[in-house]
Amino acid sequence: MTATQTERQTGAGSITGIIDSDVHPNFKDGLRDLRPYMTEAWQRKLGIGGDATWASRFAAASYVLPLDYLYINSAGAYREDAIHNGEAPATDPVFSAKQLFDGHGIDVGILIAGQLFGIGAFPDADVAATVASAYNDWMCEQWLAVDPRYRGALAVAPQDPAQAVKEIERVQGRPGITSIFLPLHDILHGNRHYYPIYEAAQKYGLPIMVHPSGTENVFAQAPRMAGTPTYYIEWHTALAQIHQSNLLSLVCHGVFEKFPDLMYVICEGGFAWAAEIMWKLDRDYKGLGDEVPWLKRKPSDYIRRNVRFTTQPMIEPHKREHLNTVLEMVYADETLLFSSDYPHWDFDDPKLALAGIDRDLLQKICHDNPMAVYGHRL
Amino acid sequence: MTATQTERQTGAGSITGIIDSDVHPNFKDGLRDLRPYMTEAWQRKLGIGGDATWASRFAAASYVLPLDYLYINSAGAYREDAIHNGEAPATDPVFSAKQLFDGHGIDVGILIAGQLFGIGAFPDADVAATVASAYNDWMCEQWLAVDPRYRGALAVAPQDPAQAVKEIERVQGRPGITSIFLPLHDILHGNRHYYPIYEAAQKYGLPIMVHPSGTENVFAQAPRMAGTPTYYIEWHTALAQIHQSNLLSLVCHGVFEKFPDLMYVICEGGFAWAAEIMWKLDRDYKGLGDEVPWLKRKPSDYIRRNVRFTTQPMIEPHKREHLNTVLEMVYADETLLFSSDYPHWDFDDPKLALAGIDRDLLQKICHDNPMAVYGHRL
Repeated sequence: MTATQTERQTGAGSITGIIDSDVHPNFKDGLRDLRPYMTEAWQRKLGIGGDATWASRFAAASYVLPLDYLYINSAGAYREDAIHNGEAPATDPVFSAKQLFDGHGIDVGILIAGQLFGIGAFPDADVAATVASAYNDWMCEQWLAVDPRYRGALAVAPQDPAQAVKEIERVQGRPGITSIFLPLHDILHGNRHYYPIYEAAQKYGLPIMVHPSGTENVFAQAPRMAGTPTYYIEWHTALAQIHQSNLLSLVCHGVFEKFPDLMYVICEGGFAWAAEIMWKLDRDYKGLGDEVPWLKRKPSDYIRRNVRFTTQPMIEPHKREHLNTVLEMVYADETLLFSSDYPHWDFDDPKLALAGIDRDLLQKICHDNPMAVYGHRL
Repeated sequence: MTATQTERQTGAGSITGIIDSDVHPNFKDGLRDLRPYMTEAWQRKLGIGGDATWASRFAAASYVLPLDYLYINSAGAYREDAIHNGEAPATDPVFSAKQLFDGHGIDVGILIAGQLFGIGAFPDADVAATVASAYNDWMCEQWLAVDPRYRGALAVAPQDPAQAVKEIERVQGRPGITSIFLPLHDILHGNRHYYPIYEAAQKYGLPIMVHPSGTENVFAQAPRMAGTPTYYIEWHTALAQIHQSNLLSLVCHGVFEKFPDLMYVICEGGFAWAAEIMWKLDRDYKGLGDEVPWLKRKPSDYIRRNVRFTTQPMIEPHKREHLNTVLEMVYADETLLFSSDYPHWDFDDPKLALAGIDRDLLQKICHDNPMAVYGHRL
């Protein structure tokens, strides 16, 4: 661990290449992978203790991680070439490092969520907090310790902010921790519920990272979208809605006035939509500023200062010349961070996905902007 | 099949013993058990084609049956002694027949739902209909054909009533089919959405059976309860709410005026609560009858004529002498049907669960009432 730590501590200055803000390490066998990281009592409580393997196939016998169980991806959801030795994609940190870093010329990858995207849908806050905590130990031991190019977002459960703060304090000092992964929940992010988490994030210089949960309109306690889609393709495109609503909530509640140093990274949520939202908020603010008197700047200023978007899934305008225009509209030189979404089916190779972007802007998206967001923690 | 069919056709008259209205056959490996009963195209669409076994552990790679994934039963959810040869409970029709029929002196058991309780939560109506249809073929071939004491409720998907009617017409004439299992959905049962299903049910003399879905407040498109429980014990007791709401909806919409011969069997939904609902409806009806002018009798008359309740989980009044009073309040001599809920953890043995009930009433609950409901189809 010491060697890894040293490399990492000296790493920030030496990173000259691409920083990937969205990499997913997977469990081999769901929650059971976390057994070594929780007490026997908790294993029993989650239904993953003992050897009743038949039970894992039955509902009400063991918890499952809330994910996108009712929308399936007919393309397979994962890169087929990420299947290694017959194991599921991104379950082997050595193979994944070789494929992602060596294969695509990426310097550093931030691990986010594993399959914890949806724990905000657990109705029992203690279950969610225990799973998050076990995941953090698993991620540090099974992934961060294995290759010095990995970094990690520590996971917290959104249901009980007091427990989340304790978890941040427990894990934030470990080598390779760059940020906080805050799973989506059915309370929008501007609400006071989350302020203890934001306070801790600001105190420890940890950006908050959010990511589609896969539970949107699947589970009752998950974030909702406007209406229930039928097909995966329909649902997958609508996933951006919760990020739009959370962004509006954060700005309008004045979260970035209260926590001016808080950074909020929207992973895999799209970004082109942010242009219209900035324009609309700024326009409305002229007439409706009295409703949100705690704002001291125009709304888009907060987004440009405190919010970042990751690139994947990269936009593909019908007319290629529109790409740079959209990037300008969303202030990509300040707000955009490269991400690959390894090992998912719609993985973005930086060379292909970012083709056609000017060299200076590319340097910002791939390196300078992430360096500014994660700072010394890289 | 012919021998079985003959035994069954002559069976109705010869049944003198206990009829069990709630028995659950289980899959060994979830949806994959249904592969032989659907096209390859549908297997691929559901993510259960091919051999990518790792994929079954990942969300978005294969559909799962919507069930109670976020509330787990620390008692194990199943009778431990129903585990046979290391296989999950109620996956072997021969062993299950021996344990349920021979072991508990039960004459006939109606198979309901398997693990299809929650298919009303699927956002894609075609997925739900395909799963229901494959289940019906599986149930007939793997269970009804194996032991002449099994009967079956044919499953339909509630999302698309036109498809449900076609499925009723396809399956209703098969040997051993006694009824229709209608999975719960987020549209209450009095609504016109369901009338084509009720019309077919009445036409073919098939009672509608309903059962808790396990998805209540778990999945977004599932029936909701009032507020979100945290613990299984809390959630399990609140499950009756959707049955209460459906019953109110059926009565107030006048469904039993429109379909006077329709029988509606509430399985595992409790029954003591029905007394207060009958009293309250009848009382309100005196002042509010103008709002529901299509009702020609007082509300409780419809419940006594068209609605039946299964016994399990049997009530256990603190004072034993209250048992017979409650049974009288709910007109148990007309409305109650014995059920065991085999192979679940809270299985009711008829000798133990019904102890203390008068012999005449027992005969009605265990035999005469079910004979009247399922009629010649038994």
